[in-house]
Amino acid sequence: MNKGLVVQKYGGSSVANVRRILNVAKRVVEYKKKGYNLVVVVSALGDTTDELISLAEQIHKNPSEREMDMLLSTGEQASSALLAMAIHKLGYDAISFTGAQVGIITDEQFTKAKIVKISADKIREELKRGKIVIVAGFQGVTPNHDITTLGRGGSDLTAVALAKTLNADMCEIYTDVDGVYTADPRIEPKAKKLSSITYDEMLEMASLGAQVMQARSIEVAKKFNVTIHVRSSFNKNEGTIISKEAKRMEEFAISGVTLNKNEAKITVCNVPDRPGVAARIFSKISEGGINVDMIVQNVSHTRQTDISFTVNKSDLTRALKITQSVAKEVGAGEVMEDLDIARVSIVGVGMKTHPGVAARMFSALAQNNINIEMISTSEISISCIIKKRFGEKAVRALHRKFNLG
Amino acid sequence: MNKGLVVQKYGGSSVANVRRILNVAKRVVEYKKKGYNLVVVVSALGDTTDELISLAEQIHKNPSEREMDMLLSTGEQASSALLAMAIHKLGYDAISFTGAQVGIITDEQFTKAKIVKISADKIREELKRGKIVIVAGFQGVTPNHDITTLGRGGSDLTAVALAKTLNADMCEIYTDVDGVYTADPRIEPKAKKLSSITYDEMLEMASLGAQVMQARSIEVAKKFNVTIHVRSSFNKNEGTIISKEAKRMEEFAISGVTLNKNEAKITVCNVPDRPGVAARIFSKISEGGINVDMIVQNVSHTRQTDISFTVNKSDLTRALKITQSVAKEVGAGEVMEDLDIARVSIVGVGMKTHPGVAARMFSALAQNNINIEMISTSEISISCIIKKRFGEKAVRALHRKFNLG
Repeated sequence: MNKGLVVQKYGGSSVANVRRILNVAKRVVEYKKKGYNLVVVVSALGDTTDELISLAEQIHKNPSEREMDMLLSTGEQASSALLAMAIHKLGYDAISFTGAQVGIITDEQFTKAKIVKISADKIREELKRGKIVIVAGFQGVTPNHDITTLGRGGSDLTAVALAKTLNADMCEIYTDVDGVYTADPRIEPKAKKLSSITYDEMLEMASLGAQVMQARSIEVAKKFNVTIHVRSSFNKNEGTIISKEAKRMEEFAISGVTLNKNEAKITVCNVPDRPGVAARIFSKISEGGINVDMIVQNVSHTRQTDISFTVNKSDLTRALKITQSVAKEVGAGEVMEDLDIARVSIVGVGMKTHPGVAARMFSALAQNNINIEMISTSEISISCIIKKRFGEKAVRALHRKFNLG
Repeated sequence: MNKGLVVQKYGGSSVANVRRILNVAKRVVEYKKKGYNLVVVVSALGDTTDELISLAEQIHKNPSEREMDMLLSTGEQASSALLAMAIHKLGYDAISFTGAQVGIITDEQFTKAKIVKISADKIREELKRGKIVIVAGFQGVTPNHDITTLGRGGSDLTAVALAKTLNADMCEIYTDVDGVYTADPRIEPKAKKLSSITYDEMLEMASLGAQVMQARSIEVAKKFNVTIHVRSSFNKNEGTIISKEAKRMEEFAISGVTLNKNEAKITVCNVPDRPGVAARIFSKISEGGINVDMIVQNVSHTRQTDISFTVNKSDLTRALKITQSVAKEVGAGEVMEDLDIARVSIVGVGMKTHPGVAARMFSALAQNNINIEMISTSEISISCIIKKRFGEKAVRALHRKFNLG
């Protein structure tokens, strides 16, 4: 009675303590009893990763990224061993592996490595022996045997990539929320759970601040058409299915509102208005391995212009340094930083067929006296940068305006 | 100006917190400045290993040893990365490796694996590049890529084995005490530091309970004639040199008194007194990877006898299980356990040339009303099993009796 292969991923909150690890083991064993083969990807216990980062930062303001990966990868290694023990306790056979051991080969971009290939032979071998295979999430290894990590939320990526490699029948992402909501329920109590959502919508929502899943893992899921089920490890409720096409009776204009307070804004003043300058700035930043989010450059009235862009707060120091050096090179003026920003966004494939969505968004913000500092749009999302203190208010205003409750 | 290669090992208390890690980094860099090449072996931070063991035991009474090694090895991996960062902070180049990464190949005896070979090519490569190489202690990897650990105190073994493999000029073991003492100074305040001690004496003292260094690592040092300097990471005092011959003006009868409260006694009652029974018991226990310490069998008056032996407390549950099954097989009687024991021992190469040492020991215990339950002797040591509560009293009595103060 082989019902197929399920890849499950349990986040840090799902394995935060001994009791929860035992609960996860029970859930895993339930699937095994039903006849499924299982590959289980785990994150580090609770706040372990943050604690390790804090230790490192007490030692070195700017720790070596190679050593950082050496350090952080221990969190997932430990939790995968503990989960294997918990499954043993229930009388089932399980074996844990590091990313390196199952052949998750990455490039050498420490702290945000990209998966190059996965052999997974070890996994197939142990599945054949009837074992439940536990894999430490978030990590891989370079061809030179250095340990790498895949960036924050990288355990999702491990799960999706393994689901694809092993041709799994299901990929379940267990977290501490019931699924994907129209807005963060802690901000908007009327937020509703979506039963399904498209890759593109989820991608926008993730990159715009919805914490449910990491954007990169959704990209990979989309690329290889891996259907994902995001659900809670604390109950048996159905969660949200992320797939190519959402199964909804009616297409609403937007699916959700997101808020991201983890960005910082950099503005380069008095940039000479000639071709190639923007390219120069952003290629240098990209060489530094830093992702730039929004970029805004207004028409210039003089022969100079200002360029603003946002980066993740954690990259701010490095991004500033690079920007300052390029600004000097190209003869631009002052480089300013602004940490007092929030990005509020609306997302939805329906946006394409519902006119006037942008206007409704801006008027909702205006009615609430929230000033818009930057605007950026994609095919299925609109984002506004506003003052940080208005973030939650803006989410509620937009949720109401688009009747998401 | 190459002064040669130093292998240093820092124990858990030496890297218990951020401040101490930074201190270790300073000490390492001082050697580098003087012109030495350095390979630094580190233990896990402070009580990390105990905390991980406790986590595992909350999950499973008798956790899988493979998974235990997967779990415990993370402690040393983390501390080696942190030490590398601390050295970077001082402006020196350092790189950390796991046991697996530097090719410390072991057998498959999880939780107490034996080193089979060390390639150390990675280390040579990085030393050539001028880097300080940090190696996670206590761990290795099987030819099948499973992570193993070398048993408690295994970081010492890592250091000694690397010193041998790399043909190092010095092997320093840093700990939280100044060196090897005539007795544990916490028990006998008059205990004195020994400036030198032979491998054999140290071996006896280690296996008899002196916590300074792990016995196996001294065996390896003896086998390959690696001179060891045991010293404190908290000051610059000279410690104790462990080598083939101790440089002492005059040979005393004994060098030290040790106390071990980590053993448990197992007694098999009514063992049929015929050849091969003892062999049967102890070969089964040895197959289980359990080290037996003292073994006592008295002459039998009937056709049955009692056999008592001691094992490490951590092996007691497994040892009992094996013993009970063998006892049944051979038709022996009840198997009893006793955790209320301590082993007090005296050690010294001088014992060979000084007659009457045993008698002096027994009379010292008798004068203090301490009953002896088992006696065992080696060429350079005598051990007595007594009730646990008399342990410290016995140490002080013997220290006085042999004028070690």
